Amino acid sequence: MNIKTDKVAVIGSGSWATAIAKILLENVGEINWFIRKEETIEAFQKYSHNPRYLRDVEFDTSRITFYSDINKITDESDILVLAIPSAFLPVILEGLKTDLSDKYILSGIKGIVSEENLLVVEYLNKHFSVPFDMMGVITGPCHAEEVALEKLSYLTIAGTDDERIEKFAQLVQSEYIFTTLSDDIWGTEYSSVLKNVVSIAAGIAHGLRYGDNFHAVLISRAIQEIKRFVDAVHPINRDIKSPAYLGDLLVTAYSQFSRNRMFGTMIGKGYSVKAAQWEMNMIAEGYYGAASIHKINQKYKVDMPISETVYEILYEGASCKKTFEKLTTKLA
Amino acid sequence: MNIKTDKVAVIGSGSWATAIAKILLENVGEINWFIRKEETIEAFQKYSHNPRYLRDVEFDTSRITFYSDINKITDESDILVLAIPSAFLPVILEGLKTDLSDKYILSGIKGIVSEENLLVVEYLNKHFSVPFDMMGVITGPCHAEEVALEKLSYLTIAGTDDERIEKFAQLVQSEYIFTTLSDDIWGTEYSSVLKNVVSIAAGIAHGLRYGDNFHAVLISRAIQEIKRFVDAVHPINRDIKSPAYLGDLLVTAYSQFSRNRMFGTMIGKGYSVKAAQWEMNMIAEGYYGAASIHKINQKYKVDMPISETVYEILYEGASCKKTFEKLTTKLA
Repeated sequence: MNIKTDKVAVIGSGSWATAIAKILLENVGEINWFIRKEETIEAFQKYSHNPRYLRDVEFDTSRITFYSDINKITDESDILVLAIPSAFLPVILEGLKTDLSDKYILSGIKGIVSEENLLVVEYLNKHFSVPFDMMGVITGPCHAEEVALEKLSYLTIAGTDDERIEKFAQLVQSEYIFTTLSDDIWGTEYSSVLKNVVSIAAGIAHGLRYGDNFHAVLISRAIQEIKRFVDAVHPINRDIKSPAYLGDLLVTAYSQFSRNRMFGTMIGKGYSVKAAQWEMNMIAEGYYGAASIHKINQKYKVDMPISETVYEILYEGASCKKTFEKLTTKLA
Repeated sequence: MNIKTDKVAVIGSGSWATAIAKILLENVGEINWFIRKEETIEAFQKYSHNPRYLRDVEFDTSRITFYSDINKITDESDILVLAIPSAFLPVILEGLKTDLSDKYILSGIKGIVSEENLLVVEYLNKHFSVPFDMMGVITGPCHAEEVALEKLSYLTIAGTDDERIEKFAQLVQSEYIFTTLSDDIWGTEYSSVLKNVVSIAAGIAHGLRYGDNFHAVLISRAIQEIKRFVDAVHPINRDIKSPAYLGDLLVTAYSQFSRNRMFGTMIGKGYSVKAAQWEMNMIAEGYYGAASIHKINQKYKVDMPISETVYEILYEGASCKKTFEKLTTKLA
């Protein structure tokens, strides 16, 4: 990998993809950018910003080559930076004919590819023969909106190959993006899935009118639960209090704007799952995360009272109030 | 200690003392209550609530005996529950002639008695010969305002004598107060001092316009720093992610209403220490905490970039902006 000559592509058009494009353009002269809808690309070129997300970030479009064809952009690129919801990954890669096995892939996708309960790196390895050593994962804590404002943020780049993640880090670091390296690709990935599940729990608690005292206890117990899970699934030496795990949980679970927390709040206030999804006009990632973790944990049998509570409420029709009352006694 | 027959006294008249009085009255028929100012007692009796704090909590004053004389109330009580700012402890106990060595003392005081850099339990042991086994410490996460609303809260009771802390816990637990026991009186005390220092740091960052991404990293690094410190000062086996440590930090550092955070925000916005204190009309505990920790750490030499940053800004006239820029590089 040569970050001076390799062609970098961003895959996705949401707020996180837009933030990543901005970050990359601090370090490389030009990027390729995959945006699925032609009309979004047209509006982008007309206004010099993403018409739907982070609209105040102005781009020099002469430095961007847009593609709406996934085969073309992969053909033309060496490094792919993925930033789409995990649920869309199989859809977008469905028509792919280009060989991915010699591409460098940096995944900014948080979540599990739920049909098979695989992490993104596992999915790419299994279905597209991408070697693990060619991949890296970006984790926060990072609200895209703050990247737009160039507020100082710290990203952790995790991967199995030291030299590779060092290069990936060089690609994203700048005056307002500091990077840390990690060898814990599984731990950071699972942790970032679990933080969404926990944020749903936090939202439900909020909807049920539990207060800040309870929230602080819930988050403390949650990071303990996350540690138990990732230590069971991938037992290496890690400090779960690091920004990539605890920080990532905090920035989501304490955000009023987190989709997962908002979704949970509606559930806690009595909305049905369907009604909450319809009302929000989107699906919170933690909804799928809860099911995936539940399934994966059938093998490991880790004690996960918080995630299980969310699962029971979302998938088994359990009463929010009663299930949370049961949970409160387990958190003491 | 017999919580059915022993006479319990609350010492203090702030919001935390008022919350504790409410909690105790769930479990005991009557309490003694020390309030320094006669006119506060008179207003309390007239209105059936503390005229200055948590005014919506109505008390049955026939179950309370008020005292403004510290000697009289200690003479008349077996268990003392302390809830005053640590800075006032020496002042209030100055005129004490009653022997404290056979009293049970539960401390809700957060902070160090700063003249001597002693924890409250150490201070009481040194100056009043109270045996450590007779004492316990209450820690949160707990905003008094949420106790007033009977929102579910978890208190940790720490102490050196298992049976004693079990009894103390029985005194405070109720439908909305769940308790956890801990043998880590030093760790929980230092941690609760440090959380105030960290909250000042969080406020300064906020004042300097750092965002939520940075805040999450700061708090992650802070709990690592707290662990390093308490492990050095009192090396026992503890999980710093437990509510008594991490939860207590979260509830303060993420609160908009935290005095320490507010104080820090003013400093970060350019107020001098004096002006910020004058404007707030009170002194944030973390201000003293930063100095005490700095002094204590001269012996242990733990790496504490966050606490040191606060110390340099508050006591050495360092520039907020430059000192924080230096700090940001250490947090990656």
